[in-house]
Amino acid sequence: MGEFALIDEIRRRCALARPDVVLGIGDDAALLRVAADQELAVSMDTLVAGVHFPLQTEPFDIGWKALAVNLSDLAAMGAAPAWATLALTLPQADRDWVAAFCDGFAALARPHALALVGGDTTQGPLSITVTVHGFVPAGRALRRDGAQPGDAVLVSGFPGDAAAGLTCVLASALLRATAEAERAELLQRVNRPTPRVDLGLALRGLATAAIDVSDGLVQDLGHIAARSGVAARVEAEQLPCSPALAAVGDAAQRRQWQLFGGDDYELCFTAPPAALPAVHAAAAAAGVPVRVIGRIEAGSGVRVCDADGAEVSLQRGGWEHFA
Amino acid sequence: MGEFALIDEIRRRCALARPDVVLGIGDDAALLRVAADQELAVSMDTLVAGVHFPLQTEPFDIGWKALAVNLSDLAAMGAAPAWATLALTLPQADRDWVAAFCDGFAALARPHALALVGGDTTQGPLSITVTVHGFVPAGRALRRDGAQPGDAVLVSGFPGDAAAGLTCVLASALLRATAEAERAELLQRVNRPTPRVDLGLALRGLATAAIDVSDGLVQDLGHIAARSGVAARVEAEQLPCSPALAAVGDAAQRRQWQLFGGDDYELCFTAPPAALPAVHAAAAAAGVPVRVIGRIEAGSGVRVCDADGAEVSLQRGGWEHFA
Repeated sequence: MGEFALIDEIRRRCALARPDVVLGIGDDAALLRVAADQELAVSMDTLVAGVHFPLQTEPFDIGWKALAVNLSDLAAMGAAPAWATLALTLPQADRDWVAAFCDGFAALARPHALALVGGDTTQGPLSITVTVHGFVPAGRALRRDGAQPGDAVLVSGFPGDAAAGLTCVLASALLRATAEAERAELLQRVNRPTPRVDLGLALRGLATAAIDVSDGLVQDLGHIAARSGVAARVEAEQLPCSPALAAVGDAAQRRQWQLFGGDDYELCFTAPPAALPAVHAAAAAAGVPVRVIGRIEAGSGVRVCDADGAEVSLQRGGWEHFA
Repeated sequence: MGEFALIDEIRRRCALARPDVVLGIGDDAALLRVAADQELAVSMDTLVAGVHFPLQTEPFDIGWKALAVNLSDLAAMGAAPAWATLALTLPQADRDWVAAFCDGFAALARPHALALVGGDTTQGPLSITVTVHGFVPAGRALRRDGAQPGDAVLVSGFPGDAAAGLTCVLASALLRATAEAERAELLQRVNRPTPRVDLGLALRGLATAAIDVSDGLVQDLGHIAARSGVAARVEAEQLPCSPALAAVGDAAQRRQWQLFGGDDYELCFTAPPAALPAVHAAAAAAGVPVRVIGRIEAGSGVRVCDADGAEVSLQRGGWEHFA
């Protein structure tokens, strides 16, 4: 299959009509319209084979995940998804692989009414870069820099699940020790993360700061603290633990995964105590569990405290390339 | 150097203020404003080391070229550059390499007032993906689908120079046979292509269709023909030949480079004969030579004809991945 047949295949499988797309795939650039009262949110993330996903990952899951990690960034801004461009670098043009990849991408794009409007296909080591575009009413985006002392720190879902799942994939002894149901649940969290788009939209006007948990909870919360000029205190006992996670490893290992595991694509955010009833109502409406795990204080950095209030010494940071 | 130091280095070297950037590098997404009367043009191109540039290419040139190939797409739409996002995948975080790369990127970004607003840095085989965003007044973009029978076909600059330069790099016998001045000129065309942004802007309202010549003149003109539902006839004797190209190879080789060589990033476009005086004035104002090389006819496909009107048989197509 040549490059142009490949592009046709991608277009055919990822086509979606939107009235704000004047011109989609097939010219030198896409032509798009942004409503006058909206700000455009733009984010871009790359997945490299063997770095961001195991080499044996199914192409459907790679397509899903390549979009999911980007939609997660829009979710963390409270932006509504609109368009994406896709740069797909492949060792060879395998039609079945590309078809399955596109089906995974489209399976997540369709419910968000996200249109693929352009991109590039090139030959080289397997790598996928997606740029996503979304809308947020002017001045209403969830940023990292708005946390205030006294705010509660919350997290959605169950951070740590993806890291536990990845460990199951990579460390076969743990894989064998984990029951089928829990293993499937955790692997699903690695391979098909659910970007919290609806929750992000519902948190507009409620959250004072937000970030998605891609590099580990402590590290990502640290970005909120640094950008807001505040400190964050996390109560380790309050960290949510999924039933699947509870069945894997030992307590110390689970805490490591919860605090430092990457790839969860949950939202970590802050809100003033008075807004918490509205936050919980919004989360319930979005169908996503959220939980208060700590609070914002004056100072800097992130502290994690145990049930007796003693500070837990942090053994390692989150995911960092080139570390 | 860790990932966050790397991002700081990129931001420091590529920073540029624009009033339509509400929030740039440093959050989950950039926040941007588009004026109500403008359409947003978005394009994305990847460069893979060893595929799109020789492995020995200087990092300054890689940074320049990664942006140039993208700006060339905006030029072909008649769009004014505004913002870019950069996905940089590197085998290791070499500060000197990144600094030189950013300096090359910024050297081209600055005169176009283009702001780097976000992106991603990852570890892996060297590869660069850029997404560019530009503006064009609603309904005024140069598309591929507007060519009409009777239109003239024009090209800017000197297609073939980059392919000749690349052959000089890769085929050392030719390199040794080429004089220093011509060699330097041709290598410059490979390593520092000049996107024809000003020309693209000047062609709004004059050109009926446009594309940038990245994969070879015949192939790219073929996209205009296909999308417009017309045929294109090229007069081989009318192809512009730079003084540097005239000094390299033999006549047959030069014609191959002119017709099929990629990587020139010139504009190929069509315009009705009545618009030609205005086209030439616009090109002169933009400081770019343009030349009529053929015409649009009814039918389909691209024919190349010799001085006596005989059709030249085409030996090969342009650049296609996975071919």
